[in-house]
Amino acid sequence: MDTLTTERLAAFRAELNGIPLADDDATLKLKSRDFFWFSPILKPLLDGKRAEIVAMPRTKGEVVRIAAAAARHRVPLTLRGGGTGNYGQAVPLEGGVLLDLTGLDRVVWTRAAAGRFAAGARLLDIDCALRDRPEPSGRWELRFHPSTRKQATIGGFIAGGAAGCGSCTWGQIADTGAVHAVEVATVDETPRCIELRGSDILKVLHAYGVNGIITEVEVPLAPWQPWAERVIAFPTLAEAAHFGFALTAAEGIAKKEVGVFDRRIPPLLKRLAPLVPDGHAMAIVMVSEPQGPVLAELAATHRGTIVYERSAEDAEAAAFEGKGALPPLYEYTWNHTTLHALKVEPAITYLQIRFPAGGELALVEAMEQHFGDELLLHLEFQRRFGRVFVSSLPLLRFRSPERLAEVVAEVEAMGGAVSDPHTYVLDNAGWKRTDAPQAEFKALADPHGLMNPGKLKAWAGEPGRREGADAGPAAG
Amino acid sequence: MDTLTTERLAAFRAELNGIPLADDDATLKLKSRDFFWFSPILKPLLDGKRAEIVAMPRTKGEVVRIAAAAARHRVPLTLRGGGTGNYGQAVPLEGGVLLDLTGLDRVVWTRAAAGRFAAGARLLDIDCALRDRPEPSGRWELRFHPSTRKQATIGGFIAGGAAGCGSCTWGQIADTGAVHAVEVATVDETPRCIELRGSDILKVLHAYGVNGIITEVEVPLAPWQPWAERVIAFPTLAEAAHFGFALTAAEGIAKKEVGVFDRRIPPLLKRLAPLVPDGHAMAIVMVSEPQGPVLAELAATHRGTIVYERSAEDAEAAAFEGKGALPPLYEYTWNHTTLHALKVEPAITYLQIRFPAGGELALVEAMEQHFGDELLLHLEFQRRFGRVFVSSLPLLRFRSPERLAEVVAEVEAMGGAVSDPHTYVLDNAGWKRTDAPQAEFKALADPHGLMNPGKLKAWAGEPGRREGADAGPAAG
Repeated sequence: MDTLTTERLAAFRAELNGIPLADDDATLKLKSRDFFWFSPILKPLLDGKRAEIVAMPRTKGEVVRIAAAAARHRVPLTLRGGGTGNYGQAVPLEGGVLLDLTGLDRVVWTRAAAGRFAAGARLLDIDCALRDRPEPSGRWELRFHPSTRKQATIGGFIAGGAAGCGSCTWGQIADTGAVHAVEVATVDETPRCIELRGSDILKVLHAYGVNGIITEVEVPLAPWQPWAERVIAFPTLAEAAHFGFALTAAEGIAKKEVGVFDRRIPPLLKRLAPLVPDGHAMAIVMVSEPQGPVLAELAATHRGTIVYERSAEDAEAAAFEGKGALPPLYEYTWNHTTLHALKVEPAITYLQIRFPAGGELALVEAMEQHFGDELLLHLEFQRRFGRVFVSSLPLLRFRSPERLAEVVAEVEAMGGAVSDPHTYVLDNAGWKRTDAPQAEFKALADPHGLMNPGKLKAWAGEPGRREGADAGPAAG
Repeated sequence: MDTLTTERLAAFRAELNGIPLADDDATLKLKSRDFFWFSPILKPLLDGKRAEIVAMPRTKGEVVRIAAAAARHRVPLTLRGGGTGNYGQAVPLEGGVLLDLTGLDRVVWTRAAAGRFAAGARLLDIDCALRDRPEPSGRWELRFHPSTRKQATIGGFIAGGAAGCGSCTWGQIADTGAVHAVEVATVDETPRCIELRGSDILKVLHAYGVNGIITEVEVPLAPWQPWAERVIAFPTLAEAAHFGFALTAAEGIAKKEVGVFDRRIPPLLKRLAPLVPDGHAMAIVMVSEPQGPVLAELAATHRGTIVYERSAEDAEAAAFEGKGALPPLYEYTWNHTTLHALKVEPAITYLQIRFPAGGELALVEAMEQHFGDELLLHLEFQRRFGRVFVSSLPLLRFRSPERLAEVVAEVEAMGGAVSDPHTYVLDNAGWKRTDAPQAEFKALADPHGLMNPGKLKAWAGEPGRREGADAGPAAG
């Protein structure tokens, strides 16, 4: 800590009377981290970064008090939800205060097909509340959630997430109509609450909390369906991938998850491993329960065999109450795949690849051939822009930063588009769109440049900003 | 009537004791017709065709008795639901008995995401029952229905329908997963009830009742959403069409109907005409109510102005209770557009065109240029096969059969695929797939060749069949 003196910190604290704070080492360490350690590049860069205080507001009023105090005393401010990001979104590069928003977990309102939630509400808790208090019209649920449904908050998902379970039907969080409104508090001596609607939402979407404190989120809800789970084994990855594509293309089959994994991945997923015959590729699927037989018929046409099935009721008991021998199967998809594999084989990391329209499955096969045991293919099927959209979170057996850079270059030369997961710089990271007007909005919502400093490269104008802190590493 | 003697008819009747029958002229005339008169080609061919008896069974047991008696006495048997077909599906070409199945209107069962219904249940009545008796999980509805929701039966829709309102999300009735099971009774001395599931369903799908009496239908249900209605005016057809495409491509906007109409059509739709400024193209849209603002923003980017909006509650009151100044807006879409236009301008008929993937909107513009005031473009946007699928039911100002044939040839030369609506022969008609194994199944389910004779060209082997009756006219 150099820009933040002990005196300023004390003065800042003095204004937060009554708001839960912590500054013990264990809490500071715990709350200053997310899942950046999936990346061997980010790990050494971010490992030691710490906030000086953690603040845990419980109301919007307390958030506003913290924002005002941070502005007055020029204290850097980093936001945190469930801390499930993979790119250091929640890591305070310049110390200061870490704002843990999980205390703001209120359901503001729900009605048929829409709901509004405080930013710190966890996604599973929201779905739980929607289950327990159904509308007169029936039961609703979030359209999508990452595999970290249990931990992730809706504000954190908006601020740093992209897609997840449900994206095979509803697209992803940046798509038109996926978010109806976001309320943000400015970090200013007299903070304002600004309601963003329509395309204005893009200003703060996937912005890591660099330009305003997301306090509430309003989203359309999906009508609930009885989501049954299946694990399906296929002789080859090509067959599994063609099945995944066909299922995602089938408007007639209601579905929430279509993940495909090559033959080398099931053995890395300990509790799933015994289900899948040796050398077989695998699909993890969630479909509307009455459509199980149609799904089985479609799988069979691709030489798929159902090796595990769980009813919607049992799958929900696993998700909501932790019941059953297996966790909810979505906890093996998206970036949970990487998490499980890492536990078995610590040298594993991952990439994020989007496949070009039309050539998806040919490229999958070409990549399987080309990279051999270095890259283990994990596909997630989505619907976006009116078509089937194939993305991949392949597991990479990491050798060196140089080799990682080569792999990225080779994937791109083959026609894949890599979204670099090995940088904490917002402008390059994740699946995000890079044309959003985030820097412009930062001037308004964070005039002192205090919010999550070092993450937004396009931002270069305020006193709180330190030169050199925003140049994140390229992959490799 | 020549093959059916008065004696045989009397013997047949004698076996139907207790089953409601009619043979008065008015009933025979009414029940022997459908909406084939949309076609100036079909009208003279089918106008005088009459059954000799109408039977109105109320139970599956009565259906089986009728089937057995028809088989024993070799009485031709034609099935009828709501009589809303446009290709003479319900017209008895060889007299005999007309089986009106609307008495079989039972909800067999419903559960979350699926239901089973007697074949004669009308689509609106099914949705009404689903509204009035929601599942514990909430309210469900049919995934799609033609614009004739009020009249059409689920059995008739399976037997002769294709797509409709809801197809912009759920595809259409022939797509994988759209129908879970169909029960058919054979027309045999000892009729059997056969349950078809999975791809076996294709045997009787869109088969006009030539190969078994559909008695029950099991379908997946869609979770209900609060469907609000909008009419949107656009300066040009191109803008309206691009809007329709973008809306259908937007996974983030939940929708049930996307219809687009060129500037010459609104004046033909009497009660809608005053809403749309002169010379403007129009879209009719149903979206989930909380997504109204997102829809408005999308429309505005295509220079669309919302000229009429109705809440989900009021739209439902219009559909279910006939309340409000306007009928439900879906009664201006699909083939209702043609019906309204025909009333204003009797020389109007229509075509059915599918647009090639990728070139949809360019072809729409080219056709608008090429045909001028002869062809009035009406587009219906669907999702099928994992993509946006543009189909058209353009209104045609009919001049002569020869010119109709020329128009079809010109459309096809430009790249459109025409599904001929001017033939009653099953093998060519409508949107149907022509590779379904209908003739094979007919041998099993209708061994005496009594069912809807003259409609299935591929069928050529039984005594009940009369040479020459099955050669339907090509368009023109």
